[in-house]
Amino acid sequence: MQYSFSDRIRNVKPSAIREILKAITMNPDIISFSMGSPSNEAIPVQEIHEIAEKIFAHQAIASLQYGITEGYAPLRESTADRLKKVFGIGREFDDVIITTGGQQGLELTPKILLNPEDTAIVESPSFVSGINAIKSNCPNVIGIDMDDEGIDLAKLEEAIRTHKNVKLLYLIPTFQNPSGKTMSLKRRKAVYDLCVKNNIVILEDNPYGELRFNGEDIPTIKSMDTEGIVIYNGSYSKVISPGMRIGFICAPNELMQKLIVAKQVGDCHTNMFFQMVCDEFLRHYDVAAHIEKIRGIYRQKSGLMIKRIEETFPEEVTFTRPDGGLFLWCTLPEGYDSMDLARLATQRGVAFVPGCSFMVDDTAPCSSFRLNYSTPSEEAIERGIPILADTIREFLSK
Amino acid sequence: MQYSFSDRIRNVKPSAIREILKAITMNPDIISFSMGSPSNEAIPVQEIHEIAEKIFAHQAIASLQYGITEGYAPLRESTADRLKKVFGIGREFDDVIITTGGQQGLELTPKILLNPEDTAIVESPSFVSGINAIKSNCPNVIGIDMDDEGIDLAKLEEAIRTHKNVKLLYLIPTFQNPSGKTMSLKRRKAVYDLCVKNNIVILEDNPYGELRFNGEDIPTIKSMDTEGIVIYNGSYSKVISPGMRIGFICAPNELMQKLIVAKQVGDCHTNMFFQMVCDEFLRHYDVAAHIEKIRGIYRQKSGLMIKRIEETFPEEVTFTRPDGGLFLWCTLPEGYDSMDLARLATQRGVAFVPGCSFMVDDTAPCSSFRLNYSTPSEEAIERGIPILADTIREFLSK
Repeated sequence: MQYSFSDRIRNVKPSAIREILKAITMNPDIISFSMGSPSNEAIPVQEIHEIAEKIFAHQAIASLQYGITEGYAPLRESTADRLKKVFGIGREFDDVIITTGGQQGLELTPKILLNPEDTAIVESPSFVSGINAIKSNCPNVIGIDMDDEGIDLAKLEEAIRTHKNVKLLYLIPTFQNPSGKTMSLKRRKAVYDLCVKNNIVILEDNPYGELRFNGEDIPTIKSMDTEGIVIYNGSYSKVISPGMRIGFICAPNELMQKLIVAKQVGDCHTNMFFQMVCDEFLRHYDVAAHIEKIRGIYRQKSGLMIKRIEETFPEEVTFTRPDGGLFLWCTLPEGYDSMDLARLATQRGVAFVPGCSFMVDDTAPCSSFRLNYSTPSEEAIERGIPILADTIREFLSK
Repeated sequence: MQYSFSDRIRNVKPSAIREILKAITMNPDIISFSMGSPSNEAIPVQEIHEIAEKIFAHQAIASLQYGITEGYAPLRESTADRLKKVFGIGREFDDVIITTGGQQGLELTPKILLNPEDTAIVESPSFVSGINAIKSNCPNVIGIDMDDEGIDLAKLEEAIRTHKNVKLLYLIPTFQNPSGKTMSLKRRKAVYDLCVKNNIVILEDNPYGELRFNGEDIPTIKSMDTEGIVIYNGSYSKVISPGMRIGFICAPNELMQKLIVAKQVGDCHTNMFFQMVCDEFLRHYDVAAHIEKIRGIYRQKSGLMIKRIEETFPEEVTFTRPDGGLFLWCTLPEGYDSMDLARLATQRGVAFVPGCSFMVDDTAPCSSFRLNYSTPSEEAIERGIPILADTIREFLSK
């Protein structure tokens, strides 16, 4: 049979990093700085096991039967409470639902908002699966450069002026993936005001917001949302466990009604058991102490990676020094394509993700690349960074 | 802010049964024949608990970390093996992936195949969340009446001839929801041939296929699929547990590549823990004996419901006698709207789903309604059916 596919899925091309991921899978000896998984030590396995036992003892059937699309009511409540307390998020008009991991919110939002002729704007670089979730609903995605304070305001204004039907702005303001950058408070306010003026919904994605290990927290854009233009997308993947696939959305009720309909046809509801696990963990464990422990792990690992980079990388290579999150963003001298470096590094036994993967147009050469420090062990960081440094020297001298 | 929504989500209206479901939620004393959940006794709680303990002991981190979009490799293998053995499904060109419950396959398929100007065909009546999953991607959905052998072939041929770009046919050939009907082998072959001739992909949804308690199995359409036109959508919700949200798709590899991309942006991957639970259950437990037990429960419950209906319902009300699955389909004399009966029955303390909910156009009156026998206890069936019978008498005499 000759298959004919929808335009929307034709917009989404297989990722440029597939060959690198394949090489990693084929060769378990490769030291990988390419993932974005939490450290194994950051997952509260013992606590989850304890809670699981309690659920099997007292709520087994409820945890294994159908649930409702909006999510397990106690978890919606404990999540809303925590959003209020920790982030100052949630007004009269807002509601909270549970999603199947943070990724689901990234797909539901463009699905309910964008027609094929509309336009969405994203930071450049940005999270590849966020960009692709938009593209799978609407082909017109514009990437806007960032400076040290976040998305470039003048370029954003110009894009809104020159592209038709700009309806959605996708942002990761805190410890951005892949750049590790955090948008300044001043910039957040300016971006928010600009979107209010232009009737643009902001999708604020904040999976890493609690992973700050240096400096002071900056208020989320959602916490400023007096006008109801922000859909806040959160996740328990980085603070509890990613495998359980539990995320959440906080959004104005009128938007939420459509998000619920979209989720209902998407997967009916999120798995019940781990909604219960999350709720129990939030209510009866010391979440603050647990998160402080995770911060300590990433402070240590990022510090180690930065130290080894400073000691070994050629001076021409620049890199960010994030105050939280999971990633460093390194940049080669102009004219070098990090995709070629990635291929060479994979041969030398070290993997990372080349910058082109995070661009709206992922076919153009890009001199930057992303390093992850949460997944590899300290020993792997110690061994891997010098190998990468040697590979970069070899690459630059060619 | 004035929100503007996408056309695709505007196609999906909140279900007509919301008010009835709300009444059930508000009043826990209502006897509900409206759900489609498995019996609590059909869920192997003890076995799942045993397996969970094993996972916490030996694979805790893997079960709580990120997985790959295609699914947990051992479960893909055990699922493919079982499909081959039990259903004769799977050829050289086919592949199997794991989904977040059967519902996800119903949404991914129209997403990758249908543009807004294309047409999809469904049985009438059909599963409301299947219809809505299509509508959320493409507004043109045509419902085709069924006779006792399944979808009406002449009407299907005419619809293919008269509507433009018919690309997808959604079918639940075995123990259809809501009608309880099973398509004959002859009809399956004719429908398959017609779709091959017209280059139409069949989405064969088979959540109830293993729940046969009378008569002989009929081969799935997928088992005849020499040409690679069938996407087979399966689920472990009805044979293991729905709350864990584990389903699967078996489809030709070329289609599968696009389904994987769509799933990747949809929810990244399905929760790892319950993929492992399913795999362990399939490999190390007596699945055949477990399913035989479920069949016994539903044989008993459907038999009881039919007996009580025969004893108490007015003769003018007709109903199907299914050989498996979860539902009876009852029909009032012409001219009566089951939505009005549903409202009255809810007041009298019994709930069911009116037939209009299963129609492409759910605003037209419908004389049929669906009764579920898997969820209520035998005692609830004993008490509820006579109340419903009295309500019907009251309703017909008005």
